[in-house]
Amino acid sequence: MPELRKDPVIGRWVIIATERARRPDQFAISSAQGPEEKPCPFCEGKESQTPPEIYSIRPNNTAANTPGWELRVVPNQTPFLRIEGELDRTGKGLYDMMNGVGAHEIVIEANQHIANICDLSPEQIARVIGCYIDRINDLERDQRFKYVLVFKNYGWTAGGGRVKHARTQIIATPVNPKRVKEELVGARHYYDYHERCIFCDLIKQELASKDRLILEIDGFIAIAPFASRFPFEVWILPKKHSCDFVRQDPAQRAELAKILKQVLQKLKVGLNDPPYNFIIHTAPFRRQKLGYWKTIEEDYHWHIEITPRLTRVAGFEWGTGFYICPMPPENAAGFLREVDEAKTYGTK
Amino acid sequence: MPELRKDPVIGRWVIIATERARRPDQFAISSAQGPEEKPCPFCEGKESQTPPEIYSIRPNNTAANTPGWELRVVPNQTPFLRIEGELDRTGKGLYDMMNGVGAHEIVIEANQHIANICDLSPEQIARVIGCYIDRINDLERDQRFKYVLVFKNYGWTAGGGRVKHARTQIIATPVNPKRVKEELVGARHYYDYHERCIFCDLIKQELASKDRLILEIDGFIAIAPFASRFPFEVWILPKKHSCDFVRQDPAQRAELAKILKQVLQKLKVGLNDPPYNFIIHTAPFRRQKLGYWKTIEEDYHWHIEITPRLTRVAGFEWGTGFYICPMPPENAAGFLREVDEAKTYGTK
Repeated sequence: MPELRKDPVIGRWVIIATERARRPDQFAISSAQGPEEKPCPFCEGKESQTPPEIYSIRPNNTAANTPGWELRVVPNQTPFLRIEGELDRTGKGLYDMMNGVGAHEIVIEANQHIANICDLSPEQIARVIGCYIDRINDLERDQRFKYVLVFKNYGWTAGGGRVKHARTQIIATPVNPKRVKEELVGARHYYDYHERCIFCDLIKQELASKDRLILEIDGFIAIAPFASRFPFEVWILPKKHSCDFVRQDPAQRAELAKILKQVLQKLKVGLNDPPYNFIIHTAPFRRQKLGYWKTIEEDYHWHIEITPRLTRVAGFEWGTGFYICPMPPENAAGFLREVDEAKTYGTK
Repeated sequence: MPELRKDPVIGRWVIIATERARRPDQFAISSAQGPEEKPCPFCEGKESQTPPEIYSIRPNNTAANTPGWELRVVPNQTPFLRIEGELDRTGKGLYDMMNGVGAHEIVIEANQHIANICDLSPEQIARVIGCYIDRINDLERDQRFKYVLVFKNYGWTAGGGRVKHARTQIIATPVNPKRVKEELVGARHYYDYHERCIFCDLIKQELASKDRLILEIDGFIAIAPFASRFPFEVWILPKKHSCDFVRQDPAQRAELAKILKQVLQKLKVGLNDPPYNFIIHTAPFRRQKLGYWKTIEEDYHWHIEITPRLTRVAGFEWGTGFYICPMPPENAAGFLREVDEAKTYGTK
């Protein structure tokens, strides 16, 4: 069973992933860049190589765990957190811990062996977004979970695996993560003073100045954030205020699929298919219980953060929490605006 | 001039390092692992290849910027922060920024071309520690600075450069970094309740259980921390309570040099010379002005954190602030206790 441990000073939780434990001599390989690609267990016809599916889209109603699907969700083979068991918080002297209860699922985004989600059709991407929403809604029913993180690690330096088949990870956690709380608290502080959502104000300011604007479509904008941590960092924000990713109707999902595809294609074409992380930032579950976060409906605004991994994070960042970004976001936005995303890479 | 920008939601500062700005096509190289080594500008006889020295140890009183030194400190050629100018905070709509005033120095730890500080003699390491103390004391006199971070990036994946000559970076910042504040606040909360230093309690608990103890000498212990973020993470703590790294007498400096050499040799021998970050955690300057931090003398405890970089940090960590560590710290400590640090690598 994985174990969650809390740093007693900082309050930061760490998952001691005992099921992924390796011997000391097995760490060498993970420090090397891009080891050999492994045979893909995620393509159509390989269903027996994954744990049984939790969810799938099967237009012809084929049986579960057989071919004929367009998208599948399966539990992770070596999960960070395990679905079984009750939450159990304990202490050991000054240390706090809890058992690693949670969910860790993998969304297999297509039955073809395609690596980058931007090479799927807008309809396929909209289906993936619909799947995120269905899975988040389902996990919310489990009273043990407080948050669901939906994210992608694309490419080896971004933490991607040795199989190059487009997929997303979904992790439900039994505590609200520190980083999520910080964002909620920050948004709340701004709202307390201004009585406006900080993200709505940010969208207005970015649309007015256009310095950091990369793309604007009907329902969404893509910007290089003012305090970008990484070169070519991109945030995608819905123009209409909403704290919750799951409250998107089919028209919004289609719009989001469109801008997501365009942004990721611009990164792929302009920066030679870079590794990136993709993270959905949305409001936590059960927020009515969160005390001073009860205005979260008004003060928080869901969005997506995409961070290409072109630079290394070093001692200064770890020691201070400051980031050093060698690319002014205004220049990054100017560059990405000019990239013709259809130019080099075709649309599947 | 580099610019400091604040994320309006999280409050996280970012340095937009304009002087290190690169064109988009120049980012490819930095994503590759371990490019070619560059000719070394830090060896004895190459003094003209660095900016003029700020500090040096010259036993025979040779002239500055000539051979005959044992240790030199020079400004960084492309600093993250610049020493010139006054602090100037401004806003732009909802965004906050300030100009990038600070100091960025490089400690060249030896005149020989040696990469890892653990291959220096204990006397040389004690001299390096004395130099850190002298430089921190000197930078404290500059009223613009609030904190000094002393750190090492060893090896390419830890952010180290293309020159393999042992050195330390010293950065003075005009704001107290978020990560430093979190540690101070956490230590203060514990003290408020228990009226004891959390680090002193932690040392007692680790000495009693011995599960995570790697080394113990007269004045210091080395442990694998309970909530290790990274496999083989090591913290070195002075047994005697002190909030401030600079208050070490020559005997303590010699003790610290001894345990530091042993710990880093254990990592080198046991893990095949891994990349690592090394960060000194000490109390900020001008703490009497810090309001509720005025008990920092009693509640904070300086220490060193060493994090080998054997795993990749990915979307889950960025999205949550949770870390996933695939090596239980008890196993890491057991392994490092057994490593005979003198076995493979000789002592210079």
